[in-house]
Amino acid sequence: MLNKKIRVGVLASNGSVGQRFVQLLADHPWFDLAVVSGSERRVGKKYGDTCKWLLPGGIPEKVREMVMVPSTPEALDVPLVFSALPKAIAVDQEPEFAKAGIAVCTNAGAYRREKDVPVLLPEVNPDHTALIKKQQANRGWGGFIVTNPNCTSTGTTIALRALDKSFTLDKVFAVSLQALSGAGYPGVPSMDIIDNVIPFISGEEEKFEWEPRKIMGTLTDSGVKMAEFKMSTHTNRVPVTDGHLVCLTVEVRNKPSSIEEVIRAMGEFKTPEISSGLPSTPSPVIKVMEDESRPQPRLDRMTGNGMSTVAGRIRTDPVLDMRLLVLSHNTIRGAAGGSIYNAELLVKQGFI
Amino acid sequence: MLNKKIRVGVLASNGSVGQRFVQLLADHPWFDLAVVSGSERRVGKKYGDTCKWLLPGGIPEKVREMVMVPSTPEALDVPLVFSALPKAIAVDQEPEFAKAGIAVCTNAGAYRREKDVPVLLPEVNPDHTALIKKQQANRGWGGFIVTNPNCTSTGTTIALRALDKSFTLDKVFAVSLQALSGAGYPGVPSMDIIDNVIPFISGEEEKFEWEPRKIMGTLTDSGVKMAEFKMSTHTNRVPVTDGHLVCLTVEVRNKPSSIEEVIRAMGEFKTPEISSGLPSTPSPVIKVMEDESRPQPRLDRMTGNGMSTVAGRIRTDPVLDMRLLVLSHNTIRGAAGGSIYNAELLVKQGFI
Amino acid sequence: MLNKKIRVGVLASNGSVGQRFVQLLADHPWFDLAVVSGSERRVGKKYGDTCKWLLPGGIPEKVREMVMVPSTPEALDVPLVFSALPKAIAVDQEPEFAKAGIAVCTNAGAYRREKDVPVLLPEVNPDHTALIKKQQANRGWGGFIVTNPNCTSTGTTIALRALDKSFTLDKVFAVSLQALSGAGYPGVPSMDIIDNVIPFISGEEEKFEWEPRKIMGTLTDSGVKMAEFKMSTHTNRVPVTDGHLVCLTVEVRNKPSSIEEVIRAMGEFKTPEISSGLPSTPSPVIKVMEDESRPQPRLDRMTGNGMSTVAGRIRTDPVLDMRLLVLSHNTIRGAAGGSIYNAELLVKQGFI
Amino acid sequence: MLNKKIRVGVLASNGSVGQRFVQLLADHPWFDLAVVSGSERRVGKKYGDTCKWLLPGGIPEKVREMVMVPSTPEALDVPLVFSALPKAIAVDQEPEFAKAGIAVCTNAGAYRREKDVPVLLPEVNPDHTALIKKQQANRGWGGFIVTNPNCTSTGTTIALRALDKSFTLDKVFAVSLQALSGAGYPGVPSMDIIDNVIPFISGEEEKFEWEPRKIMGTLTDSGVKMAEFKMSTHTNRVPVTDGHLVCLTVEVRNKPSSIEEVIRAMGEFKTPEISSGLPSTPSPVIKVMEDESRPQPRLDRMTGNGMSTVAGRIRTDPVLDMRLLVLSHNTIRGAAGGSIYNAELLVKQGFI
Repeated sequence: MLNKKIRVGVLASNGSVGQRFVQLLADHPWFDLAVVSGSERRVGKKYGDTCKWLLPGGIPEKVREMVMVPSTPEALDVPLVFSALPKAIAVDQEPEFAKAGIAVCTNAGAYRREKDVPVLLPEVNPDHTALIKKQQANRGWGGFIVTNPNCTSTGTTIALRALDKSFTLDKVFAVSLQALSGAGYPGVPSMDIIDNVIPFISGEEEKFEWEPRKIMGTLTDSGVKMAEFKMSTHTNRVPVTDGHLVCLTVEVRNKPSSIEEVIRAMGEFKTPEISSGLPSTPSPVIKVMEDESRPQPRLDRMTGNGMSTVAGRIRTDPVLDMRLLVLSHNTIRGAAGGSIYNAELLVKQGFI
Repeated sequence: MLNKKIRVGVLASNGSVGQRFVQLLADHPWFDLAVVSGSERRVGKKYGDTCKWLLPGGIPEKVREMVMVPSTPEALDVPLVFSALPKAIAVDQEPEFAKAGIAVCTNAGAYRREKDVPVLLPEVNPDHTALIKKQQANRGWGGFIVTNPNCTSTGTTIALRALDKSFTLDKVFAVSLQALSGAGYPGVPSMDIIDNVIPFISGEEEKFEWEPRKIMGTLTDSGVKMAEFKMSTHTNRVPVTDGHLVCLTVEVRNKPSSIEEVIRAMGEFKTPEISSGLPSTPSPVIKVMEDESRPQPRLDRMTGNGMSTVAGRIRTDPVLDMRLLVLSHNTIRGAAGGSIYNAELLVKQGFI
Repeated sequence: MLNKKIRVGVLASNGSVGQRFVQLLADHPWFDLAVVSGSERRVGKKYGDTCKWLLPGGIPEKVREMVMVPSTPEALDVPLVFSALPKAIAVDQEPEFAKAGIAVCTNAGAYRREKDVPVLLPEVNPDHTALIKKQQANRGWGGFIVTNPNCTSTGTTIALRALDKSFTLDKVFAVSLQALSGAGYPGVPSMDIIDNVIPFISGEEEKFEWEPRKIMGTLTDSGVKMAEFKMSTHTNRVPVTDGHLVCLTVEVRNKPSSIEEVIRAMGEFKTPEISSGLPSTPSPVIKVMEDESRPQPRLDRMTGNGMSTVAGRIRTDPVLDMRLLVLSHNTIRGAAGGSIYNAELLVKQGFI
Repeated sequence: MLNKKIRVGVLASNGSVGQRFVQLLADHPWFDLAVVSGSERRVGKKYGDTCKWLLPGGIPEKVREMVMVPSTPEALDVPLVFSALPKAIAVDQEPEFAKAGIAVCTNAGAYRREKDVPVLLPEVNPDHTALIKKQQANRGWGGFIVTNPNCTSTGTTIALRALDKSFTLDKVFAVSLQALSGAGYPGVPSMDIIDNVIPFISGEEEKFEWEPRKIMGTLTDSGVKMAEFKMSTHTNRVPVTDGHLVCLTVEVRNKPSSIEEVIRAMGEFKTPEISSGLPSTPSPVIKVMEDESRPQPRLDRMTGNGMSTVAGRIRTDPVLDMRLLVLSHNTIRGAAGGSIYNAELLVKQGFI
């Protein structure tokens, strides 16, 4: 599609999400991973010498020899950066890139709650990129910041969008069983999680109850009007490496005639035209499993190369309307892969 | 309290729950573990030679040398048996003991749904033992069958009873993270659960949505009138050896003035007078933890020797009235220990 | 290389190793997976309906619809079968295929100790296939049986062969940390292995101390003369899904001048010419890792698509000559993949 | 035995080993846990408010309210301190206590290699406490430092001592499977160990090949003459919370007449008279298990309240003389419990 690959960089390329960016960008058809940045003590070293690589398969050859640069617009010198910065650092550094005319696709949560910053899921709200113009005008930036949602919100929001489209959501109860990679590295100490689960993740429930409603909200002149359904969550950490599983119980306004109608609505859900056919467009968008014991993280997280949302056990509920399971790969679809899919959409829309 | 210990036997004493019975009865102040039974191929062998013991600490010395007998009233020849039989066998064998005048305290689910059989939790419904007279009359039995609930229902029902007493339950959403020992032995294959969770347990949600309402139901002339609150569940298996954790979201009829009132109601919940002061009465009945990351299975399952119900993260909910966590040791409180506590209550009430 | 793919079948295609055969053969360049067999209760059913598939990625599409046949030469009707039969059944069934003129490449251990049956590793003893003629003459078979070693022996023997070639082995001490998939399915109960290791695997040490010496033995008129080095092992089961790790301590007859010479000998080890360039030839044959904490099962088991032997921590020893680690994927290189590599060699050698 | 309990303090009382000290000293018959110290940021806070308690069972009541003091002799003001300090801090702080006339029983490795400092195991070398006089003379200290061995060395050295006493050790090959708690807290990141083992522990093999030979060495005028047997090790980290398992292969000088003689020598091994009958004396000293799949960490680590050494699979070896397994609880016997046992011995010997 492109005449020439777009040169891109990764901020905080050594962490858990940074490594996924590096892995997924190493052979990307549109983007040329040209530069990797990291904290001061790594600058000037070869990526392969300073990175404790955590993923099966090893460091991509072309990245192993790259010399790390500081996280400044001048040092990276590319039109597009992917950010895996921690929130506390992202809050200051990401605007520097946007000011310098650079597009920032970030996994950090620092700007998700800003009125003029989209929390973007190409399957759900590709129109929210219209906020970019507003953002640039408000802030006097030549570049911009686009965020992807928290890893737990991602798969759930895609599944909820499929339900909302057909039946209009009213109330959602969600309980997550979240993977360890979601806590970064070193993250959760092993002594805390062997033969155990941890029924608390700091700040997670607040994000999980807020983000889906912004993403599914309506664009207005003053920003995004939050969607009106209500959401209640519990979030748990479980001893699983990758893949967040969520138990959903849902009430809708337009009652389905049967559970088969719900299953069909999930399975036939399509990504909007503008978001389809991109290199990272998931195929299928939502996979509905029939086996009543699925999806399971270890077996199903790599569905559609880790980009698909996987649903299962879609069934009636004795109190509300329906129950189901949703699984999503948290460091691919819910982080680096999601951010790259966003960037592809932005290229198609002409923002990059 | 007793002049002389009551001689008791354990049916299916070699399995996961059977071993807990043996462990807890080996030094019981009221009961003398006199005889252990098992399947045909074990009969005539020493317990220590035929049992693959699964619990830390080893087989109690006095039981190691006991010679296993067949599961018949004649072979056991005791006034009280504890049953760890699988449901499919319990359905035929347990009545044989009741006919023979023997009290059967069972962990099996075979008779839980019978109108004249109590599903007994001493903290909740000690009055339901009144069904025993009806059961004996209906069936012409000299003995009787008393069941304890499914392991998942146990802790949750005790916690719900504390809420119901103060605020009257209306709707309950429960999502469990259940331990492996709940599936017995060999139970869950390791290849299914390492780096994984399994979001389905056959038949579990049906039990979990029905049992709490029977236990909290009202005695009437025709049996137990089910409690009226509604209940919706998801049940999941997680890689934890012991301890079922449940995430609860609850709506009540009588609104608490504050969340502190709810915390107080849980912490101050007392077992009924008749059920207190017994050897297995939990102390505390409900432990409310303050640390927002607790209870956790590995750290908290042995609270009150594994008999207490542990609650935590009692907080408001954006959709219903309150959210909380409940942890209960599934093979102690939720199985063998619960059944022994039931037997102690029956002794106190004069049924044994 | 071939004008036409060779039609092949898989015996016991539903088990842990059988599924790996199906996965690896679904798109094989030389072999056409034409038929799958299984136990009586599965015959006549579609593979996808009767198989509890355990591998990430799901059942290959073309196999899902295949109708299962009984394990007889007539029902399979192919020139080559791969056997994942349990030993007790293999002992009777595999000869039936050989009698019927069919080549049997088997993962079962039933015939490994027969004088006229090769235990074949293409990297080590491709010349041992000369036993096939003897086997056919002795037994009056038109077909034949070729075995691959036990999963634990596989990687270790390849690594030992590299050492033996350069330095001539004298004594080997090996301690394994073995993955769960090596025990098949359902295999190890989860309650036995969570927060635990099991320092015993029935029959494993006997195999592990015998097979490497047969594989590295010399062909003589009366069969294979066992290699003369001595071997002592401990075998342990650990909570890892795939990948057997072995700690080796080795004494040799021709002392290396330095540890670097040993590292070089391992890294430069080549598969014999006849075994190179086949579809399953590992690349690299042996990967030597420099990071002192590697190889690790989760990170390194898929090296060379799970076919490479991975070595690390090659270092001197205070008592003998050298110490090192060896990792090998137990259900790919150590089972199905190894058996397929054997079949490829047999095709090249003209036996099939 | 004592008229009055001895007041003691714990240095670095908040860490993984520090908590074990607190747990084991809370009800000790001879020692009164009077004071707990920690790093600067904790000083002045209540123990229960600043400690992230990691052990099942919760913080002992009497310690919960203790106010933490700095790690100085003046602030602790007791005749005996137990040290869980990290090595880098212990090297400077522990001598301060010794100078001030205080007995230091330490789990830190900082002084284990000093000629005048005993590495003490009451079962093995109670006579090595004679070094204390030399230490005090050399250094002008009124107090002294006594160390316990590294957690991996502990159980293995006790088992080796039993073999050495009867058969005189010549060569020892040891491969460990070590628990996570041995790495302290936060220690091993969960992402590194789920579905994995790590075949490297920094500095561990050096300790494990040196300490047993010092402990089993002979007192001479110039210090301890190292025992002469040779030792070679591999050390591995496995996903187990507590309990180090070691696979041993051993050559001896005085050959046993049969393996039964070895089993008997292990099972009948007695702690020296001076070390017996103390509050922490293990009972049994060595437990020899008959089941060929034992010892296992989860099932057997608490043998003798976590103070016994557990052996199993004592069998002949095809290369050397014998093979066996040894299990020892790494934070009880191998750390805090061992240090307390040492202090009890020192009281009995009149050093405290």
